[in-house]
Amino acid sequence: MFADLHRPGDPLLLPNAWDHASGAALAAAGFKAIGTTSLGVAAAIGVADGASETKQATLDLAASLVHLPVPISVDAEHGFSDDPLVVADYAQRLEALGVAGINLEDRNQDPKHHADVISAVKQATSLFVNARTDTYWLGDGTGTEERCRIYIDAGADGIFVPGARDDLEGLTNLGAPLNVLFLPGMTIERLASQGVARVSTGSALYRRAIGAAVEAATAIRAGEQPPPAPSYAEVDAYQR
Amino acid sequence: MFADLHRPGDPLLLPNAWDHASGAALAAAGFKAIGTTSLGVAAAIGVADGASETKQATLDLAASLVHLPVPISVDAEHGFSDDPLVVADYAQRLEALGVAGINLEDRNQDPKHHADVISAVKQATSLFVNARTDTYWLGDGTGTEERCRIYIDAGADGIFVPGARDDLEGLTNLGAPLNVLFLPGMTIERLASQGVARVSTGSALYRRAIGAAVEAATAIRAGEQPPPAPSYAEVDAYQR
Repeated sequence: MFADLHRPGDPLLLPNAWDHASGAALAAAGFKAIGTTSLGVAAAIGVADGASETKQATLDLAASLVHLPVPISVDAEHGFSDDPLVVADYAQRLEALGVAGINLEDRNQDPKHHADVISAVKQATSLFVNARTDTYWLGDGTGTEERCRIYIDAGADGIFVPGARDDLEGLTNLGAPLNVLFLPGMTIERLASQGVARVSTGSALYRRAIGAAVEAATAIRAGEQPPPAPSYAEVDAYQR
Repeated sequence: MFADLHRPGDPLLLPNAWDHASGAALAAAGFKAIGTTSLGVAAAIGVADGASETKQATLDLAASLVHLPVPISVDAEHGFSDDPLVVADYAQRLEALGVAGINLEDRNQDPKHHADVISAVKQATSLFVNARTDTYWLGDGTGTEERCRIYIDAGADGIFVPGARDDLEGLTNLGAPLNVLFLPGMTIERLASQGVARVSTGSALYRRAIGAAVEAATAIRAGEQPPPAPSYAEVDAYQR
């Protein structure tokens, strides 16, 4: 069960794929579950992170990743709608594909509304609902604990506080597994000691992929050899 | 003009993108034209390189890349059809999007058929048609020069011989710019001295991207810091 992988003090490291092959390569590398990155999905089709065009692209990505032998958790932004029932319908479509979990973000807006969204999704599905609050991502962290309590009361299975770095102890004692975003300078060991139950890489792997591709091309241009890469046959074998 | 970038002895280094952001990042890094990689397009949706599902995905990728300020050349496999007129129709759709060039491969099959395909595409469009022969890719190189002559006679603007490494001189004197695939151990300088006019990275950048993503996730799992990556804002700005 995906929920069982969330162990406070022994966190699930959830790497975030942007396409089928990246997910397959991460699963082959032994990661026990795979997430998705909304930035990767958006940038891949040339739109802003959060743009409405990513709603279908996110479903398409989920439909390919569910063929992997590990649980898939989908970054579904704010649910692509302000209507909790429409979000719940979207979550049902993800569950029908075989997805195990969903991230839903509050965008630091009305917590009561986000609680309604969480509640609607929990009523409609048995997905692991990871309630993300953007108090740090879009603000200074004010109100994080209150929001997390509200979301847990609404049925959230986990809480996700991207941007949180310090003072995690209060957030690990709210009754649901705490998920943080891996940021430079963090270590899994230190996060484990703070009681974190899940660590996401967010958009970092996709950004590193783009950077590494440009580095390889630039090396060739400079007359150097690019770093080694997986073989053609290895990547071509990453099929549904 | 895209054709003018093909200079024997001063080759165009054409890096191959697999999505919008990778193309945008390569253009931002100063590459003068961008290609696509059929392996990247296929692996991204979890199908085999060359599968029919990539026909639409290739168009979708082209539609996003044409917004970049550099010429785009599309890897269109064998044209996704055995009917030259159907391939020509596909090429017209690419041209209508604003694409500058197209790669069409012979899969080491009947050269007369491939000549008919090239001729049909040249009659239907003004695309730069890069005629690829898979004599080395799928064989031992037998018949390369004869095939290239047939494709040039049919109207090909350039010839592409992936897998060719040595004895390039004969291929550079056939009357059309020679494109080779960059392979480990090659250098742009050496290829230039052999009279090559275009060097493609093929699937290498995509494969490196996948490898680098896994390396970053694995580093985090091992308690290390992953390599630096472009910022969230930089990648999110890669919009159409």
